[in-house]
Amino acid sequence: MEKYVIIGGVAAGTKAAAKLRRLKPDSEIDIYTEDTHVSYSTCGFPYFIGGNFDDESYLFARTVEEFEKSAIHIHLKHKCVGVDIKNKKIYGNDFSKEYDKLLLATGAYPVIPNIKNLNLKNIYTLRKVEDAIFIKDSVKSAKNAVIIGGGYIGIELMEAFVNQGLDVTLVEASDRIMPFFDKEISETIKKYILEHCNNCAQIVTDDTVIEFLGQDKVAGIKTSSGKEFKADLVVVCAGVRPNVDLALNCGIEIGSTGAIKVNEQMQTSVNDIYAAGDCAEKFHIVARQNVWLPLASTAIKEGRCAAINMSGAKDYFLGVAGSAVTKYFDFTMAITGLSEQDAIKYGFNPISATIIKSDKVDYMPDAQEIIVKVIADKDMRTILGAQSIGYGNADKRISTVVPALNCHITVDEFMKNDLPYSPAFSTSIDPILTACEKLVEKLNRLNN
Amino acid sequence: MEKYVIIGGVAAGTKAAAKLRRLKPDSEIDIYTEDTHVSYSTCGFPYFIGGNFDDESYLFARTVEEFEKSAIHIHLKHKCVGVDIKNKKIYGNDFSKEYDKLLLATGAYPVIPNIKNLNLKNIYTLRKVEDAIFIKDSVKSAKNAVIIGGGYIGIELMEAFVNQGLDVTLVEASDRIMPFFDKEISETIKKYILEHCNNCAQIVTDDTVIEFLGQDKVAGIKTSSGKEFKADLVVVCAGVRPNVDLALNCGIEIGSTGAIKVNEQMQTSVNDIYAAGDCAEKFHIVARQNVWLPLASTAIKEGRCAAINMSGAKDYFLGVAGSAVTKYFDFTMAITGLSEQDAIKYGFNPISATIIKSDKVDYMPDAQEIIVKVIADKDMRTILGAQSIGYGNADKRISTVVPALNCHITVDEFMKNDLPYSPAFSTSIDPILTACEKLVEKLNRLNN
Repeated sequence: MEKYVIIGGVAAGTKAAAKLRRLKPDSEIDIYTEDTHVSYSTCGFPYFIGGNFDDESYLFARTVEEFEKSAIHIHLKHKCVGVDIKNKKIYGNDFSKEYDKLLLATGAYPVIPNIKNLNLKNIYTLRKVEDAIFIKDSVKSAKNAVIIGGGYIGIELMEAFVNQGLDVTLVEASDRIMPFFDKEISETIKKYILEHCNNCAQIVTDDTVIEFLGQDKVAGIKTSSGKEFKADLVVVCAGVRPNVDLALNCGIEIGSTGAIKVNEQMQTSVNDIYAAGDCAEKFHIVARQNVWLPLASTAIKEGRCAAINMSGAKDYFLGVAGSAVTKYFDFTMAITGLSEQDAIKYGFNPISATIIKSDKVDYMPDAQEIIVKVIADKDMRTILGAQSIGYGNADKRISTVVPALNCHITVDEFMKNDLPYSPAFSTSIDPILTACEKLVEKLNRLNN
Repeated sequence: MEKYVIIGGVAAGTKAAAKLRRLKPDSEIDIYTEDTHVSYSTCGFPYFIGGNFDDESYLFARTVEEFEKSAIHIHLKHKCVGVDIKNKKIYGNDFSKEYDKLLLATGAYPVIPNIKNLNLKNIYTLRKVEDAIFIKDSVKSAKNAVIIGGGYIGIELMEAFVNQGLDVTLVEASDRIMPFFDKEISETIKKYILEHCNNCAQIVTDDTVIEFLGQDKVAGIKTSSGKEFKADLVVVCAGVRPNVDLALNCGIEIGSTGAIKVNEQMQTSVNDIYAAGDCAEKFHIVARQNVWLPLASTAIKEGRCAAINMSGAKDYFLGVAGSAVTKYFDFTMAITGLSEQDAIKYGFNPISATIIKSDKVDYMPDAQEIIVKVIADKDMRTILGAQSIGYGNADKRISTVVPALNCHITVDEFMKNDLPYSPAFSTSIDPILTACEKLVEKLNRLNN
């Protein structure tokens, strides 16, 4: 009977376990995690905190009991400290377990900036179920919240706190929020967010929290520029870094991104040890090199791929496109591929076109504007990426670009796509195609 | 100064004129049409009739005055009856006009079945602006409406009439409504539509209207099975056929579909005569053969392509994918590529998988179910098409499949697409990817 051991039980680990169970009904499958929960949706935390739903059981895809029913053994609070590669055995301080194939799905750690008085109460990160529950509970008695970090989680938490009636200050160290988007798009996002609720939300950029104020409980923050803001609740969303402690301990190769190096079959540099999810590097299909992009949807696909290969069959994970989407109330922000700034960083010669257009025909009462930016390479004319934001349906336009990135097609070809049209769903030429048309015209002018 | 003449002024014709004006600022551009209006949105008629908006000016993309401002001369009520190919001249009964390049954008005719008492009042088709205005006006005094034909327009009109408080009977000659979808999907659509409003809408299939009842004004219909239904308003939406009268008159080659044969540059068999829009054949990128699919979004793209080629530059229209979308109130129906039934017809060896899944993570309060069907070829494993229906966001899933059809990728590759994920927009594995995953598993079982 084959022994599969998985370390980590959030997205990649549990998906791999479930897939292995289907592929290998008679195998032994064990998940070890230092966490107190498994199989939860980190992405759901902001909506749980914001009151979109209150029952915490919704956060779990499957319970420990459900896993046990399919003979997937969950070992909570079991921190694995080492791997004996020669004898194919993992061990913790008071346990050990033999494996035939091992999957590292150790995820990521939140980055904690070096801030004075970090030990005050009501200062949180948001990675685990307990964090979400504590924060949701703190919201009840809070009036002022500070969020450190203006990425996806920061913006989603901002919505959650505003939804719960708090006054929110978001502090971002870089020159703008949502820095994955190009600068002018980020600026527009900021404008929209501030317009939505001028009095209850403020955004501070180019500034760093250097000190937490208060006795025992946090009461405020102080920034490097000398500003002070009230806060009876602080969440640090200053990014994450891959959890590669165990991989380092047992000599598994770490890539240049700082995450575990894996091949297309999710194999690490050590025989019979695989890695998937936030702890592993990903191949970026547009940049054509390894990157580190920790996302649940990727983790699940990698977990599935790892499981198939661990079972003895073959599967290949082709890579990521850098796709992401979120919203601030009714305002959508979606991206795929490379931004213009990243395209330059990766050695492309980008050119872009941006349009503003209704998401539906204007006579439809619920038509709303969206901004669509498409980026292509000047020489190859291939699409490198797209960004779309607005109160209208921006995410559909970005989703349609994703398969095109996989095929490395030109913007000329893409603009000819026969996207479905009806006045209730699109303009007769979809906004994403209009943006491509504008970009093609720009490219043609370059060549004339 | 070059002379461009365009016959027909709805979608393809006006798009071509506008594009020609940009490409050839000094040229002479004339649009001739027997119609009383140009540049209107036929697809908007049901929403105008249904009261989604009441100002008929919204139906027009550009007015005659706006065209004249950019020196595009519109000749309304000018029926062109022939083309003197040798002398490059079009003519009507009392006019003629020389051309250097001619575009036929003559559109399509509604099919009128042979029904007794067709001359009664309040029996309409829905192709022109007058039709829409007359029908909207008739609705005010009507109580019972009959729609003949259960395709896109029939279903959209049904929504419009129900919205306006009418009791509606839809009669469809074939065995089901929305026959472009596979049978089981059509059946589900019917079920949803009837559930939405059990008492005010009924659908009769496998039956044909053979007689209109009433004196002077229509009062009811009689079907071949002997059923009678009240009707003080009837709209015949029994399909359309390409308007190729003029093309036939001047010896332009008609394709096997009955529409004008064109190449990828929208050239007909006669030198300097182009065709675009509903009067022209289209190449189907999945079926790999010519089809006739009259759609406004295609007409606009073809008009643009024709204009570029007429101007002396080069452009290629790559073909259609058979994409379409509509809704019945909040219920979306979307399709692209070939249905399973059509795949068989075109010589493929199809296999499909269908799933039901929420369009968002279940804990989001507005999550709604959608049904997603994906079709692939058993031997090549390429995606042939997809269908999605439901109260949830079905159209996004279909839109993402379109670029994949252009690239003829396998369902195995498609399921690895990095679609953007956030609980508010998708499940962590998007429903379209889940459907593909199920199809891959089916394909793998066939091979084991």
